[in-house]
Amino acid sequence: MTNDSKRIVLGVQYDGAPWRGWQTQPDGLTVQDRLEAALKSFTLQNVDTMCAGRTDTGVHALEQVVHFDTTLTRDMNSWVRGVNTFLPPSIAVRWAAEVPRQHDADFHARFSASARQYQYVLYNHPVRSPLLAARAGWVFRPLDLARMRDAAACLIGQHDFSAFRSSQCQANSPVKTMHAITIEQRGDLFLFTLKANAFLHHMVRNILGSLIVVGVGNQPPAWIGKVLATGDRALAAPTFMPDGLYLAKIDYDPKWNLPQAPVFNALWPSI
Amino acid sequence: MTNDSKRIVLGVQYDGAPWRGWQTQPDGLTVQDRLEAALKSFTLQNVDTMCAGRTDTGVHALEQVVHFDTTLTRDMNSWVRGVNTFLPPSIAVRWAAEVPRQHDADFHARFSASARQYQYVLYNHPVRSPLLAARAGWVFRPLDLARMRDAAACLIGQHDFSAFRSSQCQANSPVKTMHAITIEQRGDLFLFTLKANAFLHHMVRNILGSLIVVGVGNQPPAWIGKVLATGDRALAAPTFMPDGLYLAKIDYDPKWNLPQAPVFNALWPSI
Repeated sequence: MTNDSKRIVLGVQYDGAPWRGWQTQPDGLTVQDRLEAALKSFTLQNVDTMCAGRTDTGVHALEQVVHFDTTLTRDMNSWVRGVNTFLPPSIAVRWAAEVPRQHDADFHARFSASARQYQYVLYNHPVRSPLLAARAGWVFRPLDLARMRDAAACLIGQHDFSAFRSSQCQANSPVKTMHAITIEQRGDLFLFTLKANAFLHHMVRNILGSLIVVGVGNQPPAWIGKVLATGDRALAAPTFMPDGLYLAKIDYDPKWNLPQAPVFNALWPSI
Repeated sequence: MTNDSKRIVLGVQYDGAPWRGWQTQPDGLTVQDRLEAALKSFTLQNVDTMCAGRTDTGVHALEQVVHFDTTLTRDMNSWVRGVNTFLPPSIAVRWAAEVPRQHDADFHARFSASARQYQYVLYNHPVRSPLLAARAGWVFRPLDLARMRDAAACLIGQHDFSAFRSSQCQANSPVKTMHAITIEQRGDLFLFTLKANAFLHHMVRNILGSLIVVGVGNQPPAWIGKVLATGDRALAAPTFMPDGLYLAKIDYDPKWNLPQAPVFNALWPSI
């Protein structure tokens, strides 16, 4: 872009169920395709977007962060309301902000992110719930919270996460730092919150699958640490369903002054 | 049915968004059509169902109650799991029970019900939320909880609810008894719970529309009482969107010993 272009950052929420993930595809059935089509309808220009974290088919975002460059001048409220009029009910821009251009260190939705937080909502009941379908994972065998917490503790810190990495992962390195994994229970619902500097492809769903194997009693908690140490994807559990996975929060340096919302998962209100 | 037939009662949950309401229609795109098709697949017999409360297009049920008669013998767990294998993700049988046949007072899902409870979840925020689309109503102007509570109080007791009745309502009488209306707020979400002996067609959505008119400040709370007294549908607010409406609970005499679940709205967990 030219030097007089502006860099606009959007907070984008979506229900991932109807979409083939974030990243643009020839069939056009992705969140990025629909967002860029809406931006084009609103600006009458082609707009290329960059996101903080690509999500897979069926994965939701409470607050995906996206940036793009434009020479147009619109107030931030217009970016929100104007673009939303061209988006389907399952996608919405929640906020917009302009970040100052810097010669050698522009804000970048992906590269400026210092950490990512994902949430997984799990329904643990003998019978599935239609009102949680595509919004929460479902396990019908009883889960033991304490066992899963013990297992999750094995994953904290800097590790080679190859054992929980999809074969299609394009990350340069399998070494990531897991800052925290919290697991909470409210009746039949479990909320898993994972925070890391970055995640490998399918990493959260692969970890979830293995935590569930421990939670139902098929493996002891320490098994997860052993799987991690082998680096062997074949030893970990299968990739768990995407239904309950939410990209919850992207962390940036406060200097960017983004109007990010507190994490709010409607299935897990904090009040 | 013959005297040796059994009467089976089901607790049925559904996401109403994909369906044209409960009641069977020629196009087959209703919850009843899909449930009866699943029952036929499971029993290899035609099964006619009767529900406690017909829901409209887009309206959800946390626990609809349905009965049917059959000469087949299946254990209750089989009615749940077997029928669910033939149902789409948006509909599920949550429990099944057999009720004793009585010569002149058989259990009837509709006529044995002593009261009905509906819930309405409302999202109050300047920007819509994709993760609440089709699960909660949306109002972008700020709502005043105290004003809406004052307005709701005007509706408690036995009244002619013609002012909140759809022109297509087939009820014998517009006189119903509203036992309670509670309104709670958690951040940007409101939960309305209405309990009455019975409801007229569109009654909850029409009351919601008028409570919102008061909540945003366009009418004083006492206005609702005046509208109620006139019995004039044209004076009340338009029918509010179905998205946030849930048939929550049907009350029956405890003698029927139905395994009904406590009201659980995933968007409003009680713990």
